[in-house]
Amino acid sequence: METYIKVLAVRGAPAIGLAGGYGMFIAARNANTLHQAYKDLEIAADRLGNARPTAVNLKWAITRQQAVIKEVRTKLVNEYDSEQGLQTLRNALLTQADNMLKEDMDLCRQIGEAGLSLLQEGFTVLTHCNAGGIATSGYGTALAPIYVAHEKGMHVCVYADETRPLLQGMRLTAWELATNGIDVTVICDSAAPFLMKQKMIDLIIVGADRIALNGDTANKIGTYGLAVAAKAHGIPFYVAAPYSTFDPKIADGSEIPIEERGAEEVTNFLDKRFAPQKAMVYNPAFDVTPGELISGIITEVGILRPLYSQSIKSFIANHS
Amino acid sequence: METYIKVLAVRGAPAIGLAGGYGMFIAARNANTLHQAYKDLEIAADRLGNARPTAVNLKWAITRQQAVIKEVRTKLVNEYDSEQGLQTLRNALLTQADNMLKEDMDLCRQIGEAGLSLLQEGFTVLTHCNAGGIATSGYGTALAPIYVAHEKGMHVCVYADETRPLLQGMRLTAWELATNGIDVTVICDSAAPFLMKQKMIDLIIVGADRIALNGDTANKIGTYGLAVAAKAHGIPFYVAAPYSTFDPKIADGSEIPIEERGAEEVTNFLDKRFAPQKAMVYNPAFDVTPGELISGIITEVGILRPLYSQSIKSFIANHS
Repeated sequence: METYIKVLAVRGAPAIGLAGGYGMFIAARNANTLHQAYKDLEIAADRLGNARPTAVNLKWAITRQQAVIKEVRTKLVNEYDSEQGLQTLRNALLTQADNMLKEDMDLCRQIGEAGLSLLQEGFTVLTHCNAGGIATSGYGTALAPIYVAHEKGMHVCVYADETRPLLQGMRLTAWELATNGIDVTVICDSAAPFLMKQKMIDLIIVGADRIALNGDTANKIGTYGLAVAAKAHGIPFYVAAPYSTFDPKIADGSEIPIEERGAEEVTNFLDKRFAPQKAMVYNPAFDVTPGELISGIITEVGILRPLYSQSIKSFIANHS
Repeated sequence: METYIKVLAVRGAPAIGLAGGYGMFIAARNANTLHQAYKDLEIAADRLGNARPTAVNLKWAITRQQAVIKEVRTKLVNEYDSEQGLQTLRNALLTQADNMLKEDMDLCRQIGEAGLSLLQEGFTVLTHCNAGGIATSGYGTALAPIYVAHEKGMHVCVYADETRPLLQGMRLTAWELATNGIDVTVICDSAAPFLMKQKMIDLIIVGADRIALNGDTANKIGTYGLAVAAKAHGIPFYVAAPYSTFDPKIADGSEIPIEERGAEEVTNFLDKRFAPQKAMVYNPAFDVTPGELISGIITEVGILRPLYSQSIKSFIANHS
């Protein structure tokens, strides 16, 4: 599971979290004794938790599973190594992973309902990367309001940034929207500001990998440039994310680690290198958009508005 | 030649102009009689002149060759169809094409000298697409100041936007800079604003396909977004171009036609399609950056500054 997360076979912050949750169950399932399971789970938590640095959902899911382990361990304090104890632990981890999946589906639906108020008949929405049903379960985050609008018979068009280097927008977002009968047009990332200038975009919605207490948001590289251009054109710029994407431990975006990925993601297509050997490559996978550039954050309980230092604080407080 | 220009075997505004100039010579060379040559040249002027709509250099070169034809025709008014007359016409067209090439090399060098004042030891320059020696002859336009600086022993680093969809930055700019011993790092187009935010960019220089009288500049798609981000970060944003790129016939950028190119440039890599069949694609090849976002235009006679309505007017007046 760690490898699947690293090579992006599983990707998208909420899906990575769920993979982490199920990954912990798999570690327990593969252990032969309760004693071994406890040991393996410690290793799994460390390896899964560090498979990718930017999305906070992974650590959130691992932490929830660690709480389950602690609870089981307290309950089974006298059972050093029974078969029944091992089964209890496995069941508890699977139940929690299933709960997180169900919860994620509900959250996506609620985010969609909350974001619906931003859409109008005939609106054109720009999105970046993939924060749809493939990155999560159910409706996704950024795409959830579009799915809910479509379900209610509202006609909404989407421009999907192709999202270099790995083309999640062209491969995944365009695929899932088209498959669901929603008009979608792929553009090169760099064309987005030109579309904004031509008044072709009414609204921008993107997902998030981690949100700091002041609203600073890490998301796929290119998000920051969209937010800068959106501000220059007076276009509303929204982030959509469930509470698990908020990191109550960090005050602002400067504390979010930005994953740098391999050069070949940029230079190679179908294993053929397009860049000269002598050229260097810089491939940051994420950037941080300051809260000041974000019109609102669409969550499962409604849209958080600036000042985020206040609205995020009370949002988190209501969850704990 | 028309096909070579259309499929971008020849690309870059000045190189397209030169190809147009030599294309006219080739039309005359292929004709068997002077009479036929005049007829073929009319067709060639029309076809070559319309091979691509955005760069003005093409029409500029064709117009210069048409003036040569007119001159020869006046001189040979009594020679309806002599072999010697045909040779005179061919020679005149070849001489003019050669002159435009020599002139272009001189212009590039002069642009480099003019732009040198913008650079300092250790500077990092961001560029987009390819406006180097491959797009022109000699030193190029946007890259000319970098080559001149390098020649003088100044150390300058370059970030090259990969430039989707056709990757001219990754394939051409990175290649020519690396080959010439200049430090170059390729980034995805969408990463540029994030680099600006991290203070990794001192200066941006791009080429141009057409410049209107008020400084509005058409260039490769993505240029406009860079200019918007540069303004937000207080980074100087320069355009480099010779006088042939200025279009004295248009008051502002709204009159510049923007070429839309095929979807497969975006969706296909090595003939494999990455987008779902049902998704649409919008692929504008250029955008227009308003003069207000441009710090200066580096020309062969120095750097033009705002107000462009005045500085461009007197620049053009001195050329006619």
